[in-house]
Amino acid sequence: MSSVSPSSVIARPTPGGDAAGKTVLIVHAHPEPSSLTRTMVGVAAETLGAAGHRVLQSDLYAMKWKAVYDEHDFPHRLDTKRLDFTRESGHAYENGHQAADIAEEQRKVMAADLLILQFPLWWYGMPAIMKGWIDRVWARGLAYGYQGQGNRLRFGEGGFAGRRAMVSVTTGGPAVDFGPRGINGPIDQLMFPVTHGMLFFPGMSVLKTHVVHGTGQMTKEGVEAAMNAWRQRLGGVFDEAPIAFRPQNGGDYPDGHQLRDDVAPGRVGFEAHVAG
Amino acid sequence: MSSVSPSSVIARPTPGGDAAGKTVLIVHAHPEPSSLTRTMVGVAAETLGAAGHRVLQSDLYAMKWKAVYDEHDFPHRLDTKRLDFTRESGHAYENGHQAADIAEEQRKVMAADLLILQFPLWWYGMPAIMKGWIDRVWARGLAYGYQGQGNRLRFGEGGFAGRRAMVSVTTGGPAVDFGPRGINGPIDQLMFPVTHGMLFFPGMSVLKTHVVHGTGQMTKEGVEAAMNAWRQRLGGVFDEAPIAFRPQNGGDYPDGHQLRDDVAPGRVGFEAHVAG
Repeated sequence: MSSVSPSSVIARPTPGGDAAGKTVLIVHAHPEPSSLTRTMVGVAAETLGAAGHRVLQSDLYAMKWKAVYDEHDFPHRLDTKRLDFTRESGHAYENGHQAADIAEEQRKVMAADLLILQFPLWWYGMPAIMKGWIDRVWARGLAYGYQGQGNRLRFGEGGFAGRRAMVSVTTGGPAVDFGPRGINGPIDQLMFPVTHGMLFFPGMSVLKTHVVHGTGQMTKEGVEAAMNAWRQRLGGVFDEAPIAFRPQNGGDYPDGHQLRDDVAPGRVGFEAHVAG
Repeated sequence: MSSVSPSSVIARPTPGGDAAGKTVLIVHAHPEPSSLTRTMVGVAAETLGAAGHRVLQSDLYAMKWKAVYDEHDFPHRLDTKRLDFTRESGHAYENGHQAADIAEEQRKVMAADLLILQFPLWWYGMPAIMKGWIDRVWARGLAYGYQGQGNRLRFGEGGFAGRRAMVSVTTGGPAVDFGPRGINGPIDQLMFPVTHGMLFFPGMSVLKTHVVHGTGQMTKEGVEAAMNAWRQRLGGVFDEAPIAFRPQNGGDYPDGHQLRDDVAPGRVGFEAHVAG
């Protein structure tokens, strides 16, 4: 459950400006209090709090978050005969008829200057409970179809613009497996559907993914080193430059769909969407 | 729920051989019977059935599939104080103490010559309910840590070897957005965590992803054309060559972690793991 009441978090953040007194929302997904995931959350809350920031949490397991997006999320249907998620999501959002837990999470995201998604990598993605947080909270009219303009305001613009976001992930396997030529594929590519697709799409400025590898075989010293690195990273989290994803309306996608021929010429795939 | 009883599906498939009389498991995730997802499932069941194959289904919404992997999945814990998913998964699998719904889905996968995952693309991945099917059903000892050998038997070998698998996905957005230089990134890269990570890892031979784009704006003729293409694809599904993912133990990864320098020299990322 949220660590604050909804009424205290509905103010919108001040974009940019000083690095103190920001609001950070940590959404996390591990039920074991002594897990590395939860240890990372504890360290983040402590570090950010000590730096004068306000920290909100969505502890998805403790909240018993409803992971499955279904008809129960639309108590006042536009069409009770046929379930169209996109249409019902927009209808519910526009008319204030969303399920209460969805609306509450949206309030927390809107109150945050920084969103941290903290999770263990399960089968090369986030645990189902967190995917279900995205599926349900990222409503039409807010996270997509912003301002009723279809796909015009996305990738750099949208309902979550002005906010930072960071994926912080732990992996059982060793770093080498996730390297440029590692057998799993590079972690930045594996996370692209999250960083570019779930976070940059609705307008967030996305920071480089933070990774702790090899959690299956960590020594006490290894954990301490990882926590020190995490504290250091968090110390500069409002100053570091985000990933240079190309905004849809910055000129690189003249038709809003494809890269212009002379942008990253000859390059294809994920990497072409990062400038420089 | 399953269309057959567990006792009828525990036989292992015959690898290779003739293309008739195979068993196909379709796992699907959309609650609306008239959705394109469910229409695709209906066409597949009909087409494969008419070709003499047996079709099993896991209709995750109808089954009210438990998406969230948690402590309730381990009724006989190895360690009741600290929840370690990996250890408990292996312990439960080895000792026959898994949750009944997990064991039943494993039986269906083991009975299948071909697994089809049919879902709408939600935020660049599978709906939470299907991710939770993978999280829970892909147990240690079966889908990873096969034969107690850690990461030695994976990517081309493992508990699901001898089976084919196909991702069949529908997208609201147009094909151009998912093209080589499309703003979403190529569909094959977006699906790599599924095709390579979830399916090839435990040993399946993975077929090219089947995609229907632009479902938000489809005409009746568009749907018919898509269904005809789907029927045609299914007609050859036991004959087509799988994606040429490099097996871990085929020589390209001498240490089991990284590509040998002279394999796909200078190439990095997902594409380096596909031969040719």
